[in-house]
Amino acid sequence: MNLLLEKTNQAIEILKEKEIDLWLTFVRETSGVRDPALDFLVGANDLTWESALIFTRQGGKIALIGNLEKEALERLGVFDEILGYDKSLRSLLCETLARLDPRQIAVNTSRNNVHADGLTHAMYEILRGYLDGTPYGGRIVSAEEIVSALRGRKTPTELTRIRRAVEITDEIYRKTFDFIRIGMTEIEVGEFMHRLAKEYGVGLAWSAENCPAVNSGPSSPVGHSGPTNIRIERGHLIHIDFGVKYEGYCSDIQRVGYVLREGETEPPVEVQRGFDVIRAAIEQSREAMRVGVTGNAIDTISREVVIDSGYPEFMHALGHQLGRVAHDGGALLGPLWEKYGDSPNQRLEPGQVYTIEPHVMVPGYGCMGLEEDVTMTENGAEYFTEPQTELKLLQ
Amino acid sequence: MNLLLEKTNQAIEILKEKEIDLWLTFVRETSGVRDPALDFLVGANDLTWESALIFTRQGGKIALIGNLEKEALERLGVFDEILGYDKSLRSLLCETLARLDPRQIAVNTSRNNVHADGLTHAMYEILRGYLDGTPYGGRIVSAEEIVSALRGRKTPTELTRIRRAVEITDEIYRKTFDFIRIGMTEIEVGEFMHRLAKEYGVGLAWSAENCPAVNSGPSSPVGHSGPTNIRIERGHLIHIDFGVKYEGYCSDIQRVGYVLREGETEPPVEVQRGFDVIRAAIEQSREAMRVGVTGNAIDTISREVVIDSGYPEFMHALGHQLGRVAHDGGALLGPLWEKYGDSPNQRLEPGQVYTIEPHVMVPGYGCMGLEEDVTMTENGAEYFTEPQTELKLLQ
Repeated sequence: MNLLLEKTNQAIEILKEKEIDLWLTFVRETSGVRDPALDFLVGANDLTWESALIFTRQGGKIALIGNLEKEALERLGVFDEILGYDKSLRSLLCETLARLDPRQIAVNTSRNNVHADGLTHAMYEILRGYLDGTPYGGRIVSAEEIVSALRGRKTPTELTRIRRAVEITDEIYRKTFDFIRIGMTEIEVGEFMHRLAKEYGVGLAWSAENCPAVNSGPSSPVGHSGPTNIRIERGHLIHIDFGVKYEGYCSDIQRVGYVLREGETEPPVEVQRGFDVIRAAIEQSREAMRVGVTGNAIDTISREVVIDSGYPEFMHALGHQLGRVAHDGGALLGPLWEKYGDSPNQRLEPGQVYTIEPHVMVPGYGCMGLEEDVTMTENGAEYFTEPQTELKLLQ
Repeated sequence: MNLLLEKTNQAIEILKEKEIDLWLTFVRETSGVRDPALDFLVGANDLTWESALIFTRQGGKIALIGNLEKEALERLGVFDEILGYDKSLRSLLCETLARLDPRQIAVNTSRNNVHADGLTHAMYEILRGYLDGTPYGGRIVSAEEIVSALRGRKTPTELTRIRRAVEITDEIYRKTFDFIRIGMTEIEVGEFMHRLAKEYGVGLAWSAENCPAVNSGPSSPVGHSGPTNIRIERGHLIHIDFGVKYEGYCSDIQRVGYVLREGETEPPVEVQRGFDVIRAAIEQSREAMRVGVTGNAIDTISREVVIDSGYPEFMHALGHQLGRVAHDGGALLGPLWEKYGDSPNQRLEPGQVYTIEPHVMVPGYGCMGLEEDVTMTENGAEYFTEPQTELKLLQ
């Protein structure tokens, strides 16, 4: 079965579970603003004119779209009923809703999950306008829990793709650390990784400007910024954040190495200590990841390991979900900061994929950060491949 | 000057012209839902946490963003003031607005221009929540006219890129019509064009599934659907709709040919007549395109040429704007159908780029459609390159 059928069938199961009658994805000109839910409903296709993609608890898969796009949608084999229009969607939408008479109409608006938030404000108002004078305007609810479940609970096909993305990323990291030499710039390291991604025929998991991020030494700016002209020197921590996109699914991994100084055979004590603290933070958080636990509880564990070891807390979430985008939405392993909304209070479910990515700064040496990708099973969180358990040493 | 500076300076001139004090682009996790305005403000960069990009009539360019993304934004050299935050944007945003005290806060919500409609409904509500209890919630207005002007009025850099996209498309069409042989499938033609685009190092102007659209003969489905296994035969019209993306800017062109039957040296009368009607429709519309005229007036001219010649009217707009996407927004050469909102009532301005694309069906032969790209000048609409003035004949 292809991925679109897998995911649209899953959507209907989720409607049953959540007891929501109807899920409406309402879009237009998706070459501009593209509702992230479309990836699961129509794949790479764009829809030009106002379109209503409807899924019902009874198993209905209905598309109301511009006549000139009926043919393309029919070929997908996803929708049982495709109704076209030329001049206005209004009457077709109202008639269809009256026929289905749902108790709730769930639309893609969400404060907490950005990837469940594809409905623009003007489209929301247009929809309300169409439903004026019908009983249905008052039945609009948020589809957040539907989309979060659909994106979060990976199907076997999705897990296979993420696993492959992670494996390729591992291989690229291995080749990159073999390639790195003293005196190279961060930019040269980044360009090498771009070349490898191209050789593997994969895309990058986020924008090329800062995928990878490469930080060599204590002066390199850490965060979502790309590599600089800073040169790799002895006594530097080399920290890299990188991910690839394989058949539409992302990896997101950080690795770290240390360039030995003349006469050193092992890293300085404070460097090794930083590594050990980050490893402990990751492992303790991963072990605590059980179905039903909140993401915030997991974040707190790593955060306390870091703070209790005397480092300042990291000013970002411990980890995010991973899927068609590197920062996928829904439940977050995060602190209760306003910018994260309710997402850290949401609970872990089987099939979800998370990153775990604490970091500390080691003064005088640079960024000590690791990021591992794990998938939730009934038995807890499992790594896709081997995590980094030792600091890479460069001569 | 780079394109981002060119466009952000232009944005400030538009604020002065429209007498709007402040334009606010309010976004988060733009790897998911990406406000189309970002292309002009931060280029390919994504912004992870809630971010407020502010432009003022006084010339201010201010970014309020997550601390981990300050460095990347500073490198762009666009913003004069970049203020970072860690946990919540709320107080930073309220303080900044209080300092600027704008009479209007224009946000990216628009019923008429999909590319001025990047603000999601939930983000709109979050913004309203932040401004609760301040005088500013009541000052929110639509930025439609700002974004429409900014996208529509191409700078010299933008026009140069579109011109190059059109030239490359012309070359690809010439090679494609040389390549086409009787017995080939539509899919083979499409694959050849994909290979050429790759050779030229350009992207496709819309999704690869239906870029190009290839229609051979009367049975091929016309519209936004991709090539099929239908084979090219004598007596077929071959109609292709294709565009490329060159340095972020699109072309969108249709070309048409006829495969002569055994013994024919010229196309049948009804085929030639269809071509002549479409050519006349395009040329009469183009000649009427003057600054200040509405798009609807231009659409009406072509529509009447087609109807007066005895063909059914085409069930789409005559033409759309062209820019960073093939279907760019704002003023539309279109009929007053509800799905088009107010866009056909908007007026032509210098610097805009439009397609002109009427079509008719010639019964028994197929789709007769042409699409030309023109740019508006003070003297009217000018072709970028030679339009198709004769039906291509294939032996």
